[in-house]
This record gives sequence, C-alpha cells and structure tokens, in this order.
Amino acid sequence: MADTLHTPTETLHDTLLRMGEQARTASAALAKAGPAGRTVAILAMADALTAATGDILAANADDLAGGKEKGLSDAMMDRLALDEGRVASIADALRAVADLPDPVGTEIARWTVPSGLDIARVRTPLGVIGIIYEARPNVTADAAALCIRSGNAAILRAGSESLQSSIAIANALRAGLAKVDLPQDAVQLVQTKDRAAVGHMLSGLNGNMDVIVPRGGKGLVERVQAEARVPVIGHLEGLCHTYVDKGADPQKAIDITVNAKMRRTGICGATETLLIDQAVAADLLPAIAAALTDAGCTMKGDDAARALVANIEPATEEDWRTEYLDTIISVRVVDGVEGAMAHIEEYGTSHTECIITEDEATAEKFLAEVDSGIVIHNASTQFADGGQFGMGAEIGIATGRIHARGPVGAEQLTIFKYMVRGTGQTRP
Amino acid sequence: MADTLHTPTETLHDTLLRMGEQARTASAALAKAGPAGRTVAILAMADALTAATGDILAANADDLAGGKEKGLSDAMMDRLALDEGRVASIADALRAVADLPDPVGTEIARWTVPSGLDIARVRTPLGVIGIIYEARPNVTADAAALCIRSGNAAILRAGSESLQSSIAIANALRAGLAKVDLPQDAVQLVQTKDRAAVGHMLSGLNGNMDVIVPRGGKGLVERVQAEARVPVIGHLEGLCHTYVDKGADPQKAIDITVNAKMRRTGICGATETLLIDQAVAADLLPAIAAALTDAGCTMKGDDAARALVANIEPATEEDWRTEYLDTIISVRVVDGVEGAMAHIEEYGTSHTECIITEDEATAEKFLAEVDSGIVIHNASTQFADGGQFGMGAEIGIATGRIHARGPVGAEQLTIFKYMVRGTGQTRP
Repeated sequence: MADTLHTPTETLHDTLLRMGEQARTASAALAKAGPAGRTVAILAMADALTAATGDILAANADDLAGGKEKGLSDAMMDRLALDEGRVASIADALRAVADLPDPVGTEIARWTVPSGLDIARVRTPLGVIGIIYEARPNVTADAAALCIRSGNAAILRAGSESLQSSIAIANALRAGLAKVDLPQDAVQLVQTKDRAAVGHMLSGLNGNMDVIVPRGGKGLVERVQAEARVPVIGHLEGLCHTYVDKGADPQKAIDITVNAKMRRTGICGATETLLIDQAVAADLLPAIAAALTDAGCTMKGDDAARALVANIEPATEEDWRTEYLDTIISVRVVDGVEGAMAHIEEYGTSHTECIITEDEATAEKFLAEVDSGIVIHNASTQFADGGQFGMGAEIGIATGRIHARGPVGAEQLTIFKYMVRGTGQTRP
Repeated sequence: MADTLHTPTETLHDTLLRMGEQARTASAALAKAGPAGRTVAILAMADALTAATGDILAANADDLAGGKEKGLSDAMMDRLALDEGRVASIADALRAVADLPDPVGTEIARWTVPSGLDIARVRTPLGVIGIIYEARPNVTADAAALCIRSGNAAILRAGSESLQSSIAIANALRAGLAKVDLPQDAVQLVQTKDRAAVGHMLSGLNGNMDVIVPRGGKGLVERVQAEARVPVIGHLEGLCHTYVDKGADPQKAIDITVNAKMRRTGICGATETLLIDQAVAADLLPAIAAALTDAGCTMKGDDAARALVANIEPATEEDWRTEYLDTIISVRVVDGVEGAMAHIEEYGTSHTECIITEDEATAEKFLAEVDSGIVIHNASTQFADGGQFGMGAEIGIATGRIHARGPVGAEQLTIFKYMVRGTGQTRP
C-alpha cells in the first residue's frame, strides 16, 4: 500500500488529493465490473483477509500495546482487540455483504408519460465515499465491503488507536481486489494519525470526494459541521429514549427497558433515558428500577422519579443530554405522551425512540409525531440496526435529515438517475 | 409581513435567526394540518394571490422601473415582468400543486423481519427549507407551494431585481395561510437586497435551517460551496449535450437537435453542445447545421466541424464549458459514443444528456454509463422538466449527488423515517 502513503516528497494534502484522483479512476472500473464482478471482488477480499490473519494480528498487537500505553479503557481495548476468531468473523461479514443484492442499476420506478417517453429511475453509485470512524478494526472491512457492494470507491480514515490493524486489513482487502483485476484504489486507507488528514477529506479533494460519512462523537460532529465542503451523511450520537406510557403492559415495560439499556450498553441504539408517564410511575417505576438495578444499571433521575425509587441519584440538566454508552440510565417522569414527545424534541438526537403501550392510538400518535430516524412501538431500541431491519450490513444509523435516515446499508450508499427512452420526441 | 422585516433594533442576522425559529414552529403546525389541511392551504394561497393582483402588479412596476434603470437585458426584463395573465398563471400553478398527491406519511415500503417486527419506511418533511433563487417572481409562489405540499416551512430569498414583486406575492401567500388558520410563517421571504442575508441562511440559523436549495449561476454555487453549513440540494447550471451517433436517424437528429437547442434557449434543459460522431459528421452535420441556422442559431465548433460547415465560428476551450442560455451552440466532432462520453465527463454539469441513435446497444451503453441526473435516448433535452416527467411542479433540476438528482418536486422535498411496530420484542 506504499502508493497511498505520503512520502517526504509530497505534502499530506497532496497525498490526499492523489488518493482522491485514484479513487475516482477506480470507481469507474468498479461501475464497469457490474454486480457479478463486485460480488467476486468482495469474496476475494474475504479470502485475502483470512489469508492475512497473521499480519493482521501482529499489527493489532502493536495497536494494543499503544492503547495500553495510552491508558485506553477496558471497553475501548476490547473493541480494538482482534484474535483469530474475530478476524474470521470479519471475513464472514464480508461474505455476507457479497451475498447482498447489488443495488446498482436496479429500477426504483418506471413509468410512461403522455408524450410517450418511457422514464426509469435507476440506482447509481454515489462515487467516492469518505468514511471517518472510530477505533474499531472491523469497520475498515465492513465499510469497504459496503462501498464496493454499492459500486463506490472508499477512502477510509480509521481511529488512530487502530491504525496499524486498519492498515493491515486494508492491505488485505486491496490484495483481494488485485487478485480479481480490479483497481486496489477502490479501497484506500489514510495512513497517518495526523488529524489534518480529516480536514483535507472534508475539503472535498478537488471534487474527488462525493460524500463524507462521519461516525463518531461530538468532537468529530462539530468539526464536520464547521469544515465540510462536501455532502455529509451524518452518524451522530444515539441519545435514544424509551417511553413507558400509562397504557403499557407492565411486563413488556420491564423487559423492553432492561433490554434497551443493558443488552449492549456501548452501541448507539442503547436507550439512555427512560421516560415514564406520571399516571403509572408509582405503579411501574419501582419494578422497572429494580430490574435495572438487578441487571447492574445505575440510575439518575428527576425529583419525581427519586421520590418513588430510593436508589436513583439526582440527574442534572446535562444528564438529559448525555449518551452514557455505559450501565447508567437517566429517568424522568413526564406528563403523558405529549410530555414524552416534548422531552424527546428538546434532548433527542433523532436516532431511535420507543413507546411502550397497549393503546394503539397513543402508539400511532407517537410513531407519527416523533421526528427521529427510527420510532418503535413495543420493542427494544437495540433493534436499531441494519441487520435487524433485514438490510444486511450497515455503515451505521444516519441521524441527519437528507438522503437517508436510520440504518445506512448498501442501498443507502446509492443515488439515482433518470433513464429516458424516446422515439424521436421533441417538446412542443 | 412587518414581522419578518428587520427593524433598526435588530441586526439582519438576528432577523434571520428569528425567521428560522418562526419557520420551525410553523413547520410543526404544517405537519399536524395533514394532507387535506395542506391542500386547503395551497388553494387559499392561490385565491389570495388572485385577490392581490393589483398590489402585485404595482410592486412589479417598481421592480421593472428599477430593472430598466439598472439596464437589465430584454430577456431578464421579460422574466421579471408580470401582467394579469401571468399572475393568473401563477395562481393556476398553485392550484395544480394543490392537486398533487401529498407525499407526507406515505409508505415507501413495508416488510416484516424474522423477529416479527413490522417495519415501514414512511415519508416525512425535511423541515425548514431555504430557497435562494434568481429574479423570477413566479418562483416565489411555486417554491412556497411545493414546500407546503411536502409539509415544509419555506424561507425564500429572491433575486434582488424582483424583490418588490416577491414581497407582494409572499404577502398574498401568507394572507392565504392566515385565512385557513395556518401560521403565516410557514412562508417567509427575506426582505432585503443585502447579500449578507444569504450568508446567514447558509450558516444554518442555529439549527433551524434543514436544507438549502440554491438555484443560480456559478457565483451562487461557489458561495454556497464555500459557506454552507447545512445540507444543500444543488441546482447548478445545465450544460446539456446532444450526441448524434453514427446510428442516428437523420431526420430525428435534425428535429431533436433543433428542438433541444432552440425551443427555449433560456432554460437549464436547453442543449448547449452538439457532439457528432465522426463516422457520420460529413453526412449529417451540414443538414443539422443548416436547420440550426434556419432556426436562428449561431454555431461555434472545432476544426473538424468547421471543415464541414462554412458558417461555424471557431470554438475555444471555454466554449465547451459555457452555458450560453442563448441562440448559440458549440459543435464538436467526436470519436463515437466513447468520445462523446469522454467529452461529457470532462465538460458536463451532470444535468441532462441525450443520444440520438437507432442502435439500441449503443443507446443502452450511453444511458448506463453517462453519469448525469437525466440521460435521454432519442428525445429532446428540453424534456428535462418535472412536469414532463409527470411529477407535477418542480423547484428545479438537481445536479448534486446526494438525496435527489433530476427534477425536484414535492416528493423530493421529503425524507423518510422508519416506523417499527412490535409486540414486546427484546433483542437476544
């Protein structure tokens, strides 16, 4: 991968510009390869990844040593760590992406207009996609595969703590592409920890960066908002809410809340705030709180919640705005579904919200009026996942307002064009 | 409309921020009004517009006087001018938008996954849309109506030469909204010629501007690219190409080329460059050129074209990049469909391109490989129009790569969310 590493004779900006040009050229080859060619490419990437297991684990050992020195949390070290089983899982995930339907060229709609023109809306790749993500080595492979599946070239920027692992994985993916005679530069990884590289990506690489997909916390988000000169499909934090309505089934309220918070606390679909209807708070909150406590969850709440449950700590205003990604939940008593929706509008991040109720009218009101990418009735917010939606793999959950909301899979990494077939029509 | 005009006690930036807040509040009311409520609103806007014809024509007279003083071209003066008939046409266009299906709340797709969750992808408004456009008074009404149809609040910035007409039209639209008890601030117009207002809009109005739709030339485009802190659905210039392939039917080549260039020269779908296959240039170009000349068109071409037709002036490199919007066409002889596609990739603006040929395989290759929002086989590029596509009214033709390409109608001014209906599911 030496060709994408910047050299002493080249500035970092020039390196990125060159990567953009290489990506643009590669994306044309990817388009011509067609669905079958892209499937073969992803399978070759999977095989090459498996073959490179030794190199990847050696590189990962370097990252882990660096992470230990840097004092990363146990959770971060765990996300960073690879072993043979995890590398095999990453390769399996690539094979699953190879099995996904290829979205490029599919007709979304086709109709004939009175002039006789036959008009088809057909999916096309976005072009060159820049993906900026955290220190999770698997994302390098997942993101690259989804880009190839959707006919896009990828320029990847991995979290610095995972750089060596990511380079090793990207090298393997590129070797796989080369094996099937596709340009390696369809997958390129930024090979420096220098954060200036992010700025260069956000600047648009002279027109050779079509879309940026940022995955990360508030710092990245703010930087992207301030600096991006290209379209962004934002993946911001998931400050998800579960609202227990007065019409809730008590057992569902307990089971869903505990699952939504505690199944995995580190994912963006984990519930961070429990809202409970004042009409049933006295009846239901003690049992829900006991179940959360049994599951190892700490609670912070408003005065009304604390008056009902002894072991709820006081919540500050900041708590309602905090994505804990941990075994902590904030709890607030609200005035019915209107109160819940007002809280979500004020503090939510438009990711995923759930209502628990047996009252269909209230549920439908919540689903219609809450303005989040995913709104759920009577199921855990942890279902906010492309795989659970039947979409196969995903890059993440989009929280912006244009192009796509919710899970971003291969289909969401495409756009469309109109193919118009005439028989000599001129416009009167 | 005094409430949206900035006062000496308020900076322009504060005025815009307040307009953003007002738009956000209004958009919620618009969502609650439902499809029927929005239809009633657009009809009331049409009636109010008709009732205000006198005020609108008086304001238009001011704009015309200003335009004359400023020395606007005849074409610009014509676009600016209103009379009773044109105002009636604008009102009719509003009624046509009222007749369009309301996209909000419609299910794009719905499926059940193995966990038993019922997942629906449902259209929702974008929120608050900022539209920046040229001095065409009718756009004020068209854009506002399309925003209302799709459940969005609009903040409009009209070309300064049409400001008085636009204010009068916006006042009428707002009066119509008030008549049906909807917030007038669902339609707001920036009431100053100060170009700083555009910068404030592009800054995002503290989160109260969800999308900017810029319509205009290179100057606006460059400003938007440099300054926008919010998503953009770009409507850039239409440097459209018509390619006459060696497989072309000669009569279709003549008819389509003349129509594509000359039917209306001032629209973005007008062809600006004629590409002709060297294999048939000697046979076909003289007849096409004669027909263009008869229609009043001037030609600029490369040496090969000039060798075949006496009255073709020499073209410079700049001509291939020029959207004439006039009775001028550039002409280039190319090496078959590959040469045409290479020229389009180099000089096109991803708007609309046409191939004229009876060879189906060549046509399908062109449709598949040319990366423009609209690709046409054997019909005039002047069909690049939402109405001609059966989409009803349009804001314009999007030339960006995300969210929407081609004609942007009511449906394209929406996004979607996922409504997930469960029965108590927790994720294992």
